[in-house]
Amino acid sequence: MPDKSYTLLAQDGDARRGVFHSFHGDVQTPFFMPIATVGAIKGGVEAMEVRDLGFELILSNTYHLHVRPGEERVKAFGGLAKFMGWDGPILTDSGGFQAWSLAKMNQITEEGITFKSHLDGSPIILTPESVIDIQRSLGIDVAMALDECTDYPCSYDEAKASMERSMRWAARCKKHWQDTGADESMYLFGIGQGSFFKDLRSESAKILADLDLPGYAVGGVVVDFTRTHEAILPSMPHLPKDRPRYLMGVGTPLDILNAVELGIDMFDCVLPTRNGRHGKVFTTYGDVNLNAAKWKDSDQLIDEENDNPVSKKYTRGYLRHLFHVNESLGGRLATLHNLSFYGNLMKGICQSIDEGNFAKFKANFIEKYSSGNA
Amino acid sequence: MPDKSYTLLAQDGDARRGVFHSFHGDVQTPFFMPIATVGAIKGGVEAMEVRDLGFELILSNTYHLHVRPGEERVKAFGGLAKFMGWDGPILTDSGGFQAWSLAKMNQITEEGITFKSHLDGSPIILTPESVIDIQRSLGIDVAMALDECTDYPCSYDEAKASMERSMRWAARCKKHWQDTGADESMYLFGIGQGSFFKDLRSESAKILADLDLPGYAVGGVVVDFTRTHEAILPSMPHLPKDRPRYLMGVGTPLDILNAVELGIDMFDCVLPTRNGRHGKVFTTYGDVNLNAAKWKDSDQLIDEENDNPVSKKYTRGYLRHLFHVNESLGGRLATLHNLSFYGNLMKGICQSIDEGNFAKFKANFIEKYSSGNA
Repeated sequence: MPDKSYTLLAQDGDARRGVFHSFHGDVQTPFFMPIATVGAIKGGVEAMEVRDLGFELILSNTYHLHVRPGEERVKAFGGLAKFMGWDGPILTDSGGFQAWSLAKMNQITEEGITFKSHLDGSPIILTPESVIDIQRSLGIDVAMALDECTDYPCSYDEAKASMERSMRWAARCKKHWQDTGADESMYLFGIGQGSFFKDLRSESAKILADLDLPGYAVGGVVVDFTRTHEAILPSMPHLPKDRPRYLMGVGTPLDILNAVELGIDMFDCVLPTRNGRHGKVFTTYGDVNLNAAKWKDSDQLIDEENDNPVSKKYTRGYLRHLFHVNESLGGRLATLHNLSFYGNLMKGICQSIDEGNFAKFKANFIEKYSSGNA
Repeated sequence: MPDKSYTLLAQDGDARRGVFHSFHGDVQTPFFMPIATVGAIKGGVEAMEVRDLGFELILSNTYHLHVRPGEERVKAFGGLAKFMGWDGPILTDSGGFQAWSLAKMNQITEEGITFKSHLDGSPIILTPESVIDIQRSLGIDVAMALDECTDYPCSYDEAKASMERSMRWAARCKKHWQDTGADESMYLFGIGQGSFFKDLRSESAKILADLDLPGYAVGGVVVDFTRTHEAILPSMPHLPKDRPRYLMGVGTPLDILNAVELGIDMFDCVLPTRNGRHGKVFTTYGDVNLNAAKWKDSDQLIDEENDNPVSKKYTRGYLRHLFHVNESLGGRLATLHNLSFYGNLMKGICQSIDEGNFAKFKANFIEKYSSGNA
């Protein structure tokens, strides 16, 4: 078991370079986690392949794995990492977000969340205690506390009541995590809420900091990416500097740069994999929709400047053809490219903070990315 | 340009070991060609990946590429191999089979085949001459002559008339292939027909042999795999020993072993890729349907005895989960396994003929494969 969860190595403004000490070795921060919702990287990519793309930690989902194949089955296979053929650390989201985004009807009480399975309508009950148990059965490295994703927009009073309940749930998660011995083999991260109300975000961060957890997340911002900073800024002063800070579900390359600048260390987002499957790629000179007829005859490479064999090998014309004829190879190649683009972005961010020129790196990246020359 | 298309190296009974001299280097026979119908290996596999699985020649389809993206576009990209990122030889089927299997309505005249596109109903006209032109534009190594795939079952008279037309088409293909200079840069293979009538198959093989082509195929057998030998046996005595013999669209591992025993050198089949996409795998001890609930808790590997990282890494339980939750990784892994299983089968066949013990190899393979221990 690591002595501590995080070591701060350097700062450049508020941007931080550090090391997250996982149960499967050190991970350099800031980092991005590819999404393996149901125990598989989306887009037909093997977990071990993402390591070559620069990723050391992947994200999976408590709710989805609870529904299928079930945490007891995963446990019998030796845990999620072994089940899916990965030898590194895994973080699992708690399922609170899925309760909000997937369930047609859910009922939230002080006890927890009861909602109908997105598959067969059967009732799924998640409590602060049960998500700890599930995540422990999954055998993952970082468990997220159960939280309530607040509706958006919402009133101050709604946001306050929801945040306060999430904080009570975080405390229950911590207690159960310690009572069950899970704290010896699994980190627990708390998730701040409070919509975009400054004082609620501050209050939430303070409460979480008082819980003295191995890591802290800023949650609930995917409802409006443009307001992300309104959730981050009031939270940061209250979060201890010696713990990792995780912005959940974010985002585009620009969102990530902006959040790193504010001191965020960890990211996850469906964009590189989901967009890839649908033929949308992030490139050095901006976003490209490979489905567009304009690429039919194009021998331009996916992204000549992105350091990855796929990006430099295949033409946009070939990719456009693959999406046009619905060959799954298209989704895989675009996913590999997008993940590598994100991986290279994170490497560039780490290096620039090490060298004390993050601002310059960010400006250069944005200049190219926003040039409209893709 | 190679001096000749084929060198016979050794025989073991009627089973042959040889070398097919392609325009992109030598290929050891007997071999199997993975299917890249529309310019991509099915199942999300890059063309260059199949080389690592033991394949040196891949198969694509004239009809499909003519419809999308069009041979002129492929030509502008530098030919099919370059377009799809492959540096080896490619064989393209002519489209006669697709006219038969895909088109809701097609009209066959002496001139050629007019049929409605499977996509938008627009008329597609394939003639012996146009398929040569299309295949030349695609820039592939081995063009197949246009043939008519005879309905099954059919009367002797129908089979005879159909075979004779296919033979006239083969002669027209040859003339156009030579007239247009394509014979300098692309092989033309003739396709024998004649349903399962012994004398028609003999007659067809004789006519093709008289055309003195770089290679010969036995076509039209996929209508009934169990009768394949009835098409092969009467053909073989008439086919010159110094040309490769290609059994089109076949088959299961046992079909391949049986055909090699009769002297076939080349194979292609949708089974490893199509079955893989649907969760059905070929293993050392027989076929396995990974969708079956019986694998839910199985930590048995896909195929411990198949020499491939995927086969020996992932459990059937994990693959069952991937197919259950509809993750595309399942299709890719099963496809990689199946292709590697076929690749290893072909390696084993080559080696056993070299060593003069093909019969023993075949018997051993069948003993395991039919054991029911999968």
